[in-house]
Amino acid sequence: MSDGNLQSDVLETPCAKKPKIDHENEKNGNDNQIPLNTFTPTKVLSNNTNRKTVFLLGKFKDKSGVAIVILEKNAFKEEELSSEGYFSAETRVHTFFNNDIYGNFECYPISKINGVKTTVIYPATDKHIAKYSKQEVHIVLESPDCYKNLTLPHLQKEQFNLQWVYNILEGKSEADRVVYDNKCEKEGFVLVPDLKWDGLTKESLYLLAIVRQRNIKSLRDLNETHLPLLKRIRDEGKKAILDKYNVAGSQLRIYFHYQPSFYHLHIHFTYLQHEAPGIYAEKSHLLDTVINNIEIMNDYYNKATLPFTIREMDPLFNIYETNGYVEKIKRIVNK
Amino acid sequence: MSDGNLQSDVLETPCAKKPKIDHENEKNGNDNQIPLNTFTPTKVLSNNTNRKTVFLLGKFKDKSGVAIVILEKNAFKEEELSSEGYFSAETRVHTFFNNDIYGNFECYPISKINGVKTTVIYPATDKHIAKYSKQEVHIVLESPDCYKNLTLPHLQKEQFNLQWVYNILEGKSEADRVVYDNKCEKEGFVLVPDLKWDGLTKESLYLLAIVRQRNIKSLRDLNETHLPLLKRIRDEGKKAILDKYNVAGSQLRIYFHYQPSFYHLHIHFTYLQHEAPGIYAEKSHLLDTVINNIEIMNDYYNKATLPFTIREMDPLFNIYETNGYVEKIKRIVNK
Repeated sequence: MSDGNLQSDVLETPCAKKPKIDHENEKNGNDNQIPLNTFTPTKVLSNNTNRKTVFLLGKFKDKSGVAIVILEKNAFKEEELSSEGYFSAETRVHTFFNNDIYGNFECYPISKINGVKTTVIYPATDKHIAKYSKQEVHIVLESPDCYKNLTLPHLQKEQFNLQWVYNILEGKSEADRVVYDNKCEKEGFVLVPDLKWDGLTKESLYLLAIVRQRNIKSLRDLNETHLPLLKRIRDEGKKAILDKYNVAGSQLRIYFHYQPSFYHLHIHFTYLQHEAPGIYAEKSHLLDTVINNIEIMNDYYNKATLPFTIREMDPLFNIYETNGYVEKIKRIVNK
Repeated sequence: MSDGNLQSDVLETPCAKKPKIDHENEKNGNDNQIPLNTFTPTKVLSNNTNRKTVFLLGKFKDKSGVAIVILEKNAFKEEELSSEGYFSAETRVHTFFNNDIYGNFECYPISKINGVKTTVIYPATDKHIAKYSKQEVHIVLESPDCYKNLTLPHLQKEQFNLQWVYNILEGKSEADRVVYDNKCEKEGFVLVPDLKWDGLTKESLYLLAIVRQRNIKSLRDLNETHLPLLKRIRDEGKKAILDKYNVAGSQLRIYFHYQPSFYHLHIHFTYLQHEAPGIYAEKSHLLDTVINNIEIMNDYYNKATLPFTIREMDPLFNIYETNGYVEKIKRIVNK
């Protein structure tokens, strides 16, 4: 599934009550047309007011099963910021107030620039619903003992599949995407664009360095023996990004996630001014800070209590809950 | 200036070429009307594609001086998510693709729900332009020596005014806003809602704990003598927020900024799922991590190299640049 597959027909939503087919307009010949105007939302699964994105659960009239509809306001495009777009004579303006040099308005632009990105999942399964539902998230403090007795046994039991990582390291997958490759088995790594990045736009630059050593699960395993590896990734990664994308090292955020999404050591490189997901203090650890911590205490990551965030539906949450480290939110309706 | 001052007239934008005044519509009798359709942008100062907000510099036709226009897409409102709103029969739908259970569309909703929040600053000064311009930001690594020789002398020279903080601690300002007050001179603190928070909405909860001791500038000054103070703030702050706002301690992000915006020790409390400004790994340090670092090494913050972000126009940037720690971005046009 990709957002880039643009086709160019503008169709009226077919009306379920009068299923008239206008062959003039229906150039796609798409017999799987979604009647968006017959959608009735039953629940707002989540509403991100910063990113202007809403996730809705509901039903299509006369169709069985449930659907998820995701609406996302579009970012502003430069070509719309003109007298043909937002500053057209046809733009209506509603004044809230004028105060000295400040004015506050609501403007209603012409229709063609009012598009809202719409994604439909139909029929939607319980897994889809869980994925898009707002979930209670907690911070857990993982002491070294908690790591040994709770987190590590869980990771060993789950045996996450890392074959896709090994395929990249061995050049069997994504070989054409590799930006930099240091083949040293001990201190080498592969630098690839993250799947979330288009590979072009500096403002959303996002690459991953994946180490060649296979026995380092996460931050927790790092000590002074890894300093040459970590410094090489920092220095060679910065240089490769400067050479290829012309972004200076001082404008990169270089960090680990804890917990990571997969347990083979990897390091994120993002543009400092890009608000990438998961860059918050409770989840991300800057590579420079990690190097410094190990330099001032070589077993720092064996001694430190590390926070991590966890959703209530995660199996690891149950383990920490059972052992009394965190409690589920009680669903009491307030007021 | 406040966004909450709603007035209710919907006006057509006056057209500069045909300055016909429609007295029927102009119920405000506002003689300071901004002709938004005569605005010509000359530069995109910045474009936040996550938050769907754009900052434009430009001119109004036949008016002297420059103006800033800020456009921000609105978040989705629940009442618009119905057959009277996005799922109206009048909504036009443009199909990108259908693939199995996934469909990707652009929908063009009815006009009345297409409002865009618009702020005009006219005439705009150079200070306004600097404030809203995308600025080059860098990460600087502050070693203990850099702190002593560069950062600290700069802070001492600037002598930031902290009277507003002392007014809160002495009950001379914002006394009615105080959520919790521990009056102990050594280990006490005041907990107040941050000015960015409305004081009500759990989803954007944001409070500040300001310590009563006056000689602690920042994280850098902390050592084992401060552990009782830090633990008291953590424990009593969590309890006060649970009692008053019914938010569990495990759902709070409790952290310092480095560099802070003012040099009197204070600690931020935000709701974990709120994407508050400045919560990124390069800027925020969780209180629990700070306590743990001091517990495993009592002079950790005297020995650590701490990263901080800085804008090129900040005077401290010049100090670090002059000393060779960071370089300005060279403005070379790529491609």
